[in-house]
Amino acid sequence: MSYNDEIDVVHLTQELMRCPSVTPTDAGVLNVLQAALEKIGFECHRLVFSDDNTPDVENLYARFGTKGPNFCFAGHTDVVPPGDLHAWTVDPFDSIIRDGKLYGRGAADMKAAVACFAAAAQRFVKSRKGAFDGSISLLITGDEEGPAINGTRKVLEWMSEQGEHIDHCVVGEPTNPNELGEMVKIGRRGSFTGFLTVEGTEGHVAYPHLADNPVPHLVAMMQALDQMHLDDGSEHFQPSNLEFTTADVGNPATNVIPKFARATFNIRFNTHHSLDGLDEKIRALLDGIAAERGASYTLKVLKNSEPFLTQEGDFSKLVAGSIEKHVGLRPELSTTGGTSDARYIKNYCPVVEFGLVGQTMHKIDEHVPVGDIEMLADIYTSILEGYFAD
Amino acid sequence: MSYNDEIDVVHLTQELMRCPSVTPTDAGVLNVLQAALEKIGFECHRLVFSDDNTPDVENLYARFGTKGPNFCFAGHTDVVPPGDLHAWTVDPFDSIIRDGKLYGRGAADMKAAVACFAAAAQRFVKSRKGAFDGSISLLITGDEEGPAINGTRKVLEWMSEQGEHIDHCVVGEPTNPNELGEMVKIGRRGSFTGFLTVEGTEGHVAYPHLADNPVPHLVAMMQALDQMHLDDGSEHFQPSNLEFTTADVGNPATNVIPKFARATFNIRFNTHHSLDGLDEKIRALLDGIAAERGASYTLKVLKNSEPFLTQEGDFSKLVAGSIEKHVGLRPELSTTGGTSDARYIKNYCPVVEFGLVGQTMHKIDEHVPVGDIEMLADIYTSILEGYFAD
Repeated sequence: MSYNDEIDVVHLTQELMRCPSVTPTDAGVLNVLQAALEKIGFECHRLVFSDDNTPDVENLYARFGTKGPNFCFAGHTDVVPPGDLHAWTVDPFDSIIRDGKLYGRGAADMKAAVACFAAAAQRFVKSRKGAFDGSISLLITGDEEGPAINGTRKVLEWMSEQGEHIDHCVVGEPTNPNELGEMVKIGRRGSFTGFLTVEGTEGHVAYPHLADNPVPHLVAMMQALDQMHLDDGSEHFQPSNLEFTTADVGNPATNVIPKFARATFNIRFNTHHSLDGLDEKIRALLDGIAAERGASYTLKVLKNSEPFLTQEGDFSKLVAGSIEKHVGLRPELSTTGGTSDARYIKNYCPVVEFGLVGQTMHKIDEHVPVGDIEMLADIYTSILEGYFAD
Repeated sequence: MSYNDEIDVVHLTQELMRCPSVTPTDAGVLNVLQAALEKIGFECHRLVFSDDNTPDVENLYARFGTKGPNFCFAGHTDVVPPGDLHAWTVDPFDSIIRDGKLYGRGAADMKAAVACFAAAAQRFVKSRKGAFDGSISLLITGDEEGPAINGTRKVLEWMSEQGEHIDHCVVGEPTNPNELGEMVKIGRRGSFTGFLTVEGTEGHVAYPHLADNPVPHLVAMMQALDQMHLDDGSEHFQPSNLEFTTADVGNPATNVIPKFARATFNIRFNTHHSLDGLDEKIRALLDGIAAERGASYTLKVLKNSEPFLTQEGDFSKLVAGSIEKHVGLRPELSTTGGTSDARYIKNYCPVVEFGLVGQTMHKIDEHVPVGDIEMLADIYTSILEGYFAD
């Protein structure tokens, strides 16, 4: 064990990427990471969680030091499937470098950032000769791209039970749309999914008076949901937005009036709303239309997540300042985009997100510039230096 | 051969019903009918037609006499599948009588009416001792409940080629909603089916500005189609009516904006419209919405059938009078309901439809009162007597 041994961050990234850790498979990836962390002096806890109807998943919580404050890097080592292998110009799990770019599944989302966590920790620990007033921890899950049931949420619960407290957290998800340093995420919109079903009375199209076609009822409800004004956004948030993701009847007979019509919608919403408030608002709207039309509906909802915002302050300034120091750009503090595990971590401590450029994540030929990986390791190192400055 | 041998119409119905002639299977049913007709003195032509991508089907054209006018009874011996056999309280192909009712697939639609054709012909021919100024013919298909490609339409074409002319036709489809004698059909609405597809740009629900969700475009188009006023009906026709039969996206991912959204609709329309006129009207409506929303759509149409009306006159009076004579009811002359093979026959001669009560057709435990079968044979006999009266 020696924290003096430099970590080659690109090499460590490649080692992680060569494990085909498509959720829920670990494929040895956490062993690679754990070996690197243990060499620095981290104490590692491997946590396998189980639940009904979902595969077991491996997670890792690692901590260097025992004092507070405890600064946490959070992320995941699982990746989405590569998709059509014939469409890739490289083997997605070979992790080759071409024209200064590192190619393969997980390059952007987010094995390089995980390697940067380790490299930054090693550099910082070495600079302090292994002694500083605080701890550095890594919370790494193998269930971020999957159902997220046996992942970060359960690690945080386990930590609570163990008395493991974290004080501030940086999540290493790819946050930059086009260029490294553009964007830090300081919050996320909430997510609400609705499954709307209208039941009618089936029949023959030639005898509509003996039937009650559910499709026009559903269409009227969808039209009203589509036209519902939610808000105009706020300083840190875009306007809330509803999107229909599907509408299905599944009736192949062109002379039959169907019995059921269904639609699914998802709302990404800001802090003007809450999950319960949206639920109430939507049911009031649908009740009105149902009453007007003499129709009935059922609405099942998935209350995915509440919106949150980590208020601008010393912590976000530290992250933004560290980025500006290396990139020369002042990042935008944003709340755009999809959900991440930050939605769980925000219940425990202030959390911001910063990682690589996300442009090619989840796509064919995912890649990042090798120089960006080096720079991200430098930025994370500066964050640790600032955080543990005297 | 002897037209003097009485046909037991209920027994003949049972013999026809015991052949499980689910389209396109003949199951021997036309042999049963042909034997009965040949005994009377009909000359029978068995016609097997073939076409691409659809099974071969057997049909029968039978004629008694060589002179004109040629009075035609038309119908079918194929039946729809019985469906859930466990739900039936009888064997659907056993044709048993219970409490004065004949049960089984095809009782109402329409093997009993076919037996009544034969019984009426025998009685009439016997009453004239085999000689009268005209002919009686039966046009029987095995492809009415199926794709209707190798059925009545091709028999009529074959007849044209053979110089076989028919002057008036009664189709024996079940026309009465509740009670024998209520309703004669003297025309039918047309049928137009539209398959509407809206193509958008797929994306993630969290980044709607990078996508173009086709679902709200489709909803707006469906709303407009639903609210389109076609007409207020006419003396013999109900108002034209549009029904959506399905709407489908088929996207299981609640965080994905889909690429395509589709809906299918069917219009049953009266003589205020034509197939081409509707096509034009609908495209104009959809073009307007597409332009307004910056959306694009494709519409495929199936021009199923034009509406038609057999004008009230001597022929419809003859049929209505024959019904009134036996039932004591003056039937309503109607154009309601689904399509039938009358849509093909109307291109050759005046056609009206009259048969049994349709209440249980296509359903579990299909049945008709035995007394109705006897009475229908009497009504058909009276029609022949009136038609060939001096």
